[in-house]
Amino acid sequence: MQEHVTSQATAELIEDALAERFGDGCGVDSTLPGLEELARIARHRVHRRFQSRPVEPALLRLLCACALSAPSKSDLQQADILVVQEKAKQNAIAARIPDMPWIAQAPVFLMFLANGGRLPQVAAMRGKPFPNDHLDLFFNAVVDSAIVLATFMRAAAAVGLGCCPISAVRDQPERMSELLELPERVIPVAGLCVGWPAEEGSITPRLPLALTLHQDRYETRGLASEIDAYDLRRAKVRPYARQRALERWGHSDLYGWSEDKARQYAEPLRAGFGTYVRAKGFCLD
Amino acid sequence: MQEHVTSQATAELIEDALAERFGDGCGVDSTLPGLEELARIARHRVHRRFQSRPVEPALLRLLCACALSAPSKSDLQQADILVVQEKAKQNAIAARIPDMPWIAQAPVFLMFLANGGRLPQVAAMRGKPFPNDHLDLFFNAVVDSAIVLATFMRAAAAVGLGCCPISAVRDQPERMSELLELPERVIPVAGLCVGWPAEEGSITPRLPLALTLHQDRYETRGLASEIDAYDLRRAKVRPYARQRALERWGHSDLYGWSEDKARQYAEPLRAGFGTYVRAKGFCLD
Repeated sequence: MQEHVTSQATAELIEDALAERFGDGCGVDSTLPGLEELARIARHRVHRRFQSRPVEPALLRLLCACALSAPSKSDLQQADILVVQEKAKQNAIAARIPDMPWIAQAPVFLMFLANGGRLPQVAAMRGKPFPNDHLDLFFNAVVDSAIVLATFMRAAAAVGLGCCPISAVRDQPERMSELLELPERVIPVAGLCVGWPAEEGSITPRLPLALTLHQDRYETRGLASEIDAYDLRRAKVRPYARQRALERWGHSDLYGWSEDKARQYAEPLRAGFGTYVRAKGFCLD
Repeated sequence: MQEHVTSQATAELIEDALAERFGDGCGVDSTLPGLEELARIARHRVHRRFQSRPVEPALLRLLCACALSAPSKSDLQQADILVVQEKAKQNAIAARIPDMPWIAQAPVFLMFLANGGRLPQVAAMRGKPFPNDHLDLFFNAVVDSAIVLATFMRAAAAVGLGCCPISAVRDQPERMSELLELPERVIPVAGLCVGWPAEEGSITPRLPLALTLHQDRYETRGLASEIDAYDLRRAKVRPYARQRALERWGHSDLYGWSEDKARQYAEPLRAGFGTYVRAKGFCLD
């Protein structure tokens, strides 16, 4: 009976989280196996503040091994993880991203790498040509790395750790490359702050499933009205604390997700990323 | 006591899986929370054969909602999931990839999409310029989609479903685009076969952590000898059933992972993918 009550409570936790996330209920069968894990996924939240309690090196290694057990395109294994252990190096990374103080404060900082270099090296080792120097090599390595990142976060959440991915490491990728001595055709996909959470965090509402979950064909109808409704739904539970680029756009009475993202991307961002990727030896044809 | 025994047994399952995976033990503290989930991750295996038992639509929707709860770069939400429900459409996709009969046989077939179109649309809706038509837009959308894919697989594994990702949908991306009516700047990242597994599957050994897990700097030493040792380790537990491209390369007495991958990529593969991506409206500068 105790177990039944627990399952029922977990199913309700999932329903509540998804309702908050998407503004739309999903029924959850409380007899499903794996409900605890579904609850962790549905209740996902980012963590940027951590306890001072360290993360044991053996635990970190275990989580990395779990992450590297993730599926890999054609078994090519084009992802690597780099643990930034020297505090000076972590501080040097943090210094390049001054609006994210949590990078320096995190007990652990990792870098997830896309590795398009190993496969051509293997071809050379085995005396084979490599007529595949084009976008697909890059694409596959990036996807492998993103899957390893997501799998690391999954393993970390299971043991109670919190994480915050940092794509801003790609704002100055040349500097990250130098600091971490990345060779040809190895690039950073994202950094990750990891630690024991010092706060619960909160659920970020997402676009309604009407926009992001399609059946048989991509549905383009209703974008504007669904986004208006989403802006309003978010404003109720998680209004923005400040408005971006006030000096350029002024105060907006209805400042929602769409206004925030439109303002964020009204400035050129990472315009040099393609140049960096090509300089590291990738061909994007 | 019962619980302690169970935790100890789960910790041993994880240790055994990682030893088989990496040829190298990781100690597992049996008092860790989340051990069951770590075991699912460490014991990850692909499933290509499924029971005829259907996957309930409500369960599928729940798993998609969980997947779309995954973290998203800057909250941009650039990933979509498309459920291929019409059997004729699933068969049309399968017909394009004749060496993977499991695509037609899977009870559920999904397509994970990278969506670089929504953000410029939102900018236009809010009367803002969009000076970010370059590689980073594409990159972020692809990474978001890969994270949603990995999170779907995580949720599916929790309830006992098996999955097989299909990157070969990008072999003929134009055809997939037509079938699924993908608009401008929306591209397939991977398909996914989903169903109740009809076989246990097996653990694929991976490159040693000495090659893929780095500390403070990317370590390039030892590649050749580590790969030789990996080829031998795999040959013991999971030898290749057939050798690729015998007519071109002949029989190899030592046919390991490196020989297999070198042969696979000695042929041009997906050389037209970059052309497709650009034709769909992405700028990769």
